[in-house]
Amino acid sequence: MSTTTVGDYLLYRLNEIGIEHLFGVPGDYNLQFLDHVIDHPQLTWVGCTNELNAAYAADGYARCRPAAALLTTFGVGELSAINGIAGSYAEYLPVIHIVGAPSLSAQQQGDLIHHSLGEGDFSSFLRMSQPVSVAQAALTPDNACKEIDRVLAEVLIQRRPGYLLLSTDVAAAPAALPQSTLSLPTAPDHRAVLAAFSDAAEQMLAQAKSVSLLADFLADRFGVTRALAAWLQQVPLPHATLLMGKGVLSEQQPGFVGTYAGAASIDSTRGAIEEAGVIIGVGVRFSDTITAGFSQQIDARRFIDIQPFFSRIGDRQFDHLPMQAAVAALHQLCLRYQQQWSITAPSPPALPPAAGSELSQNAFWQAMQNFIRPGDLLVADQGTAAFGAAALRLPQNCQLLVQPLWGSIGYSLPATFGAQTADTERRVILIIGDGSAQLTIQELSSMMRDGLKPIIFLLNNNGYTVERAIHGAEQRYNDIAAWNWTQLPQALSVHCPAQSWRVVETVQLTDVMKVIAASPRLSLVEVVLPAMDVPPLLQAVSAALNQRNSS
Amino acid sequence: MSTTTVGDYLLYRLNEIGIEHLFGVPGDYNLQFLDHVIDHPQLTWVGCTNELNAAYAADGYARCRPAAALLTTFGVGELSAINGIAGSYAEYLPVIHIVGAPSLSAQQQGDLIHHSLGEGDFSSFLRMSQPVSVAQAALTPDNACKEIDRVLAEVLIQRRPGYLLLSTDVAAAPAALPQSTLSLPTAPDHRAVLAAFSDAAEQMLAQAKSVSLLADFLADRFGVTRALAAWLQQVPLPHATLLMGKGVLSEQQPGFVGTYAGAASIDSTRGAIEEAGVIIGVGVRFSDTITAGFSQQIDARRFIDIQPFFSRIGDRQFDHLPMQAAVAALHQLCLRYQQQWSITAPSPPALPPAAGSELSQNAFWQAMQNFIRPGDLLVADQGTAAFGAAALRLPQNCQLLVQPLWGSIGYSLPATFGAQTADTERRVILIIGDGSAQLTIQELSSMMRDGLKPIIFLLNNNGYTVERAIHGAEQRYNDIAAWNWTQLPQALSVHCPAQSWRVVETVQLTDVMKVIAASPRLSLVEVVLPAMDVPPLLQAVSAALNQRNSS
Repeated sequence: MSTTTVGDYLLYRLNEIGIEHLFGVPGDYNLQFLDHVIDHPQLTWVGCTNELNAAYAADGYARCRPAAALLTTFGVGELSAINGIAGSYAEYLPVIHIVGAPSLSAQQQGDLIHHSLGEGDFSSFLRMSQPVSVAQAALTPDNACKEIDRVLAEVLIQRRPGYLLLSTDVAAAPAALPQSTLSLPTAPDHRAVLAAFSDAAEQMLAQAKSVSLLADFLADRFGVTRALAAWLQQVPLPHATLLMGKGVLSEQQPGFVGTYAGAASIDSTRGAIEEAGVIIGVGVRFSDTITAGFSQQIDARRFIDIQPFFSRIGDRQFDHLPMQAAVAALHQLCLRYQQQWSITAPSPPALPPAAGSELSQNAFWQAMQNFIRPGDLLVADQGTAAFGAAALRLPQNCQLLVQPLWGSIGYSLPATFGAQTADTERRVILIIGDGSAQLTIQELSSMMRDGLKPIIFLLNNNGYTVERAIHGAEQRYNDIAAWNWTQLPQALSVHCPAQSWRVVETVQLTDVMKVIAASPRLSLVEVVLPAMDVPPLLQAVSAALNQRNSS
Repeated sequence: MSTTTVGDYLLYRLNEIGIEHLFGVPGDYNLQFLDHVIDHPQLTWVGCTNELNAAYAADGYARCRPAAALLTTFGVGELSAINGIAGSYAEYLPVIHIVGAPSLSAQQQGDLIHHSLGEGDFSSFLRMSQPVSVAQAALTPDNACKEIDRVLAEVLIQRRPGYLLLSTDVAAAPAALPQSTLSLPTAPDHRAVLAAFSDAAEQMLAQAKSVSLLADFLADRFGVTRALAAWLQQVPLPHATLLMGKGVLSEQQPGFVGTYAGAASIDSTRGAIEEAGVIIGVGVRFSDTITAGFSQQIDARRFIDIQPFFSRIGDRQFDHLPMQAAVAALHQLCLRYQQQWSITAPSPPALPPAAGSELSQNAFWQAMQNFIRPGDLLVADQGTAAFGAAALRLPQNCQLLVQPLWGSIGYSLPATFGAQTADTERRVILIIGDGSAQLTIQELSSMMRDGLKPIIFLLNNNGYTVERAIHGAEQRYNDIAAWNWTQLPQALSVHCPAQSWRVVETVQLTDVMKVIAASPRLSLVEVVLPAMDVPPLLQAVSAALNQRNSS
């Protein structure tokens, strides 16, 4: 019987917590560990074209699965990936970053070896990872199993990245597989704080004339999406999400009033949320791009703010209160008091009809609204795509994947790869601009290699339109090299399974959409749009950002 | 008269130290500064497809110019670039990384804004840059000019990256342009240490029967290449470089014995260097990949080791001794004693003749040896390309650009872009593997956009051959998606100025080389090679690395 290793222990734990794919790029400090990945019956190795793309893919996977894992090599690999990890940190995604490292003896001797800075210090990169991860460990044969468990538990609790430095010899060191399931530290008893919270909430809700609910991305990350759905089914409060959490709440149930974006919201949306007697926020973070520069008017005295590990009611803070418990308590209170509230929830207006035959942002989003189906996963890059998507009304069980806080352009293409890998049967639709797609285009080849079938709408508006809207509309720095987008699938795959089109008129787009709806193949549609045409939300946001950058 | 700004001050200084191009990617925190770049009469903005590629391009530029500059945006941009900066740090390239940041007031208020981690701390990324740069500054209107000068001076003296955090409002703050040239701190008086060094060196050289000279990359970085050439012209010592410094010494002058790689050297090269009575090293660092795992046998008692800021003779160290001064002293001593030395320098043997009509590594390098011309700049990625290039005999004034210590695959393609931008008239030849090229391929489009004409040999050996040689020859993780390489130029440029070929036989390659030699256009040659064919040096190196990773 062959002995199991530290590497096997780690793989066992990854699989135990719901990970079935390991993204990354091989390097000589992780090759022998990779042999164990290949041999693992439940884990699949997903090689990516570079490490940043691999990190983005892992982030996309973590948005669809309980967690994700990324494997890179020391120095060159891990630093290439670190922007992706930082995005997972900012936006709360549990990604475990495993870094294959030189042997402990080489590190202890301070050898002058490749992928090091040449100064004999092998701890620099772990230190660089600290601001963007919640737990780090430099594994040794003695501490490995315990440290792996500690880092994984932190990652799962805090929903943010962890870092494991795995030297070649440590990966190969003998270790028994886990005998028990991964134990998470028990949370402090929250009964007392929950009671105090419930009392305070009841006081407020009992006197309210109306109540609105605003949910954001942290509701998704901390697992209360279903609880929210059950609550709104019984109590159809006027509700909205911010762009960052769009899809967390059903947009097809009574009470949905639109996507909230502070002063840049549609009037009826803004009024329904801000003017309620009590506003309940679940997992909300008011960041600049999704509020058009902090233009939200949420009266703190009327605000019940539920965060992952604490809640606030007015000026009182309730610490160590899990989101799940606070949500359950409010659900019960709402059942008790809903009869006394006036519940009017204006449905958001449909998108305005498109004029003319040439494609425009307006025409594109009209067509997209008709194209999307229940269950679709929409991925939108942080340019005109994400701001345009804010105005869509999502069908049931339709999820939107965006990155508005970290906002790393190009992210969405590899994230689509990761999300589609997480569920190969789901229809995944990527909407991305030409400027963004240039950053990460090579991952298209991995999708084709793996036989995945996402649908890609590439908005070709001849450069960085999101930046033109903010500053320098006509400046050369917002131009990019012009590509033949529809030729790319052929160039990036010798046995190209993709279909591609270039459309300049609305009717061409809608015709192509019909073909795509009927044929499940990887599809790339280059949608030609005017360079200065931007969705209305982006207009408001960019004016606010330019003002802030100039002040 | 319009007022000049901190941004203008910085641009003035960049240009003053020999920088004419600024590489980077625009982002909303650097757009207004970019207006000043565009308006600057001596500086050209070079937009890249992503930030890592931009950092690589800046590194390549810094290898051909006095320094380079890189502009990114806060968080997402700078972290994407940080692996490239780390490479410049490891390999001693003066790259000034300017990061456009949110306004100081937003930072002080801890605003929840895009491209931040969402925690109100805006200092994390500067801290992350510390291990990979020699000086950092968070600029304010009060400290900006002084801090810019301090960081630039450190970068120029230490030949390593510096980091400038430039907030939108600081860039726009009024500042007078410099009234005097950038002042570098005066070095301590080295006359006494130089005298002691000369005495000790003279004692050793006066008794020697033979002397050899080994030079490496730091001789290039600290500006003694010309001094070495003058020295060897007068005293034709047996001499060699390591792969990392190949091209620092002429390979066409008497005394050149080949490329030194420890036990993996050709026998006559190894003997001529190691067995001399005294071995002089100039700017040498013995790292693992260029010595086949530290197999050099350099007797410390017979070794005069000249480093940038100190020298060693036997067990004596001479601190604060500039490389330039030590080199000049040794040059003079050699003139005095050379008559008493036996100077025999075996010329390295020619490459072995290639057998068969199908292409092989051997046949490729044979053809390349005949193709290269005086003055060419060769760029080789850290796979079979760099290890194969070690065996070339470079024509006069031919430079080799490699990255063996940091060894980030994919680096060489954007580095070629940077190096070609530094001198658009020079013939630049890139040799890169298919695995490596996938990481950074999009920068090909920037070369075409800018009308550059490098010659690219893409070695298609169906995956990561350098890794197959180390471990996992047949493992799936060393496979990559197969691309139609010759279609890429067309896909990445709507007005494609490039010519491309795919060659499988030696005669096809040499025919194509004739066409390319006669027509100055951007050229891409896909060279089909066997997956397991590796240059002899790589065989020796990879055996050593695999042994070290397994022990």
